[in-house]
Amino acid sequence: MAALPQALEHLIAELGKLPGVGRRSAERMAFALLASASEEVQPLADAIARLHEQVGLCDMCGSYTDRGQCRFCSDPGRTRDTICVVETPMDAIAFERTGGFRGQYHVLGGVISPLKGIGPEALRLGALARRLREGAFVEVILATSPSVEGEATAHYVAQTLARDGLAFTRIGRGVPMGGALDLADAGTLRLALEGRRALS
Amino acid sequence: MAALPQALEHLIAELGKLPGVGRRSAERMAFALLASASEEVQPLADAIARLHEQVGLCDMCGSYTDRGQCRFCSDPGRTRDTICVVETPMDAIAFERTGGFRGQYHVLGGVISPLKGIGPEALRLGALARRLREGAFVEVILATSPSVEGEATAHYVAQTLARDGLAFTRIGRGVPMGGALDLADAGTLRLALEGRRALS
Repeated sequence: MAALPQALEHLIAELGKLPGVGRRSAERMAFALLASASEEVQPLADAIARLHEQVGLCDMCGSYTDRGQCRFCSDPGRTRDTICVVETPMDAIAFERTGGFRGQYHVLGGVISPLKGIGPEALRLGALARRLREGAFVEVILATSPSVEGEATAHYVAQTLARDGLAFTRIGRGVPMGGALDLADAGTLRLALEGRRALS
Repeated sequence: MAALPQALEHLIAELGKLPGVGRRSAERMAFALLASASEEVQPLADAIARLHEQVGLCDMCGSYTDRGQCRFCSDPGRTRDTICVVETPMDAIAFERTGGFRGQYHVLGGVISPLKGIGPEALRLGALARRLREGAFVEVILATSPSVEGEATAHYVAQTLARDGLAFTRIGRGVPMGGALDLADAGTLRLALEGRRALS
């Protein structure tokens, strides 16, 4: 006989689907929700229920937005000569948080992956081509992930959208800040050697 | 300018209220929910929204239940001579999972805590007194937590509900299984010494 009421088991199972949440964490969360007043947990239920209707993708760049054009695309203070091409909306947010980039973003929505059956047509490449054609960009920063597929996608984008007066750059790859060199894999160390720069 | 749409920030804030969930974990969860299809996240929203209407407290023992009397109280296979008094419904579930107890439970709903303004009248002590009076119990296991307040509450219950033919016992206290002795605090080690038993 299960010790928990079915509705509680159901909630624990649903919470357990969240990333990084195991059975014990899900139980802790469920018990905390049950121990809270009903009014206190409704905002969470509502926020989840309405998430997809309230947050969509920007028509222009594919970032998360709660209105037509996102905060990046509609910001007149951002430069319009540089565009950073990323895989996911989360990646754009991660770069934005560095505070080191004030240009435009373009979210591909993934990487080319023959193994997973994802071809170039599944990515937002047509929209990128249009933006590059119609905009005044001089540099395209290819910020796909440092994986085989990310590298291949970066090269594919640079090759297919190449045009005079437009520079394609790849984000630096090497050892991460704070990373232990003896724990870094050979691929990373090779990239770090290849990506070495003169000390100024 | 915040990088995230407001609805997403709101969801992250709500998720961050869950126990053990920091800002980064809440973001990961929110992004995963957003990346899932809308239909896939609705069950979680519904489970949270309907939790309090579907799960209540057992009229008899105060455990969580999705019907009038809980699975413990309504189980004819459980013995009715022993009752385990715990602080919360979660504690009853924890003891149940040991598989080592087949008697009845009684949830107090907390401990006596003068500092927090919680007196005996705030606990489910009247219901316990009634059960002890009307039932055929011979042993009351006081399984409140091993804290100053838990100890005081156990003693209070034993003193106020004492009656001929009814034994009050306290759960064993000492070093936990797998615990490192040199890391145990002095109070725990003292309890372990006091609670020593002959090796059989």
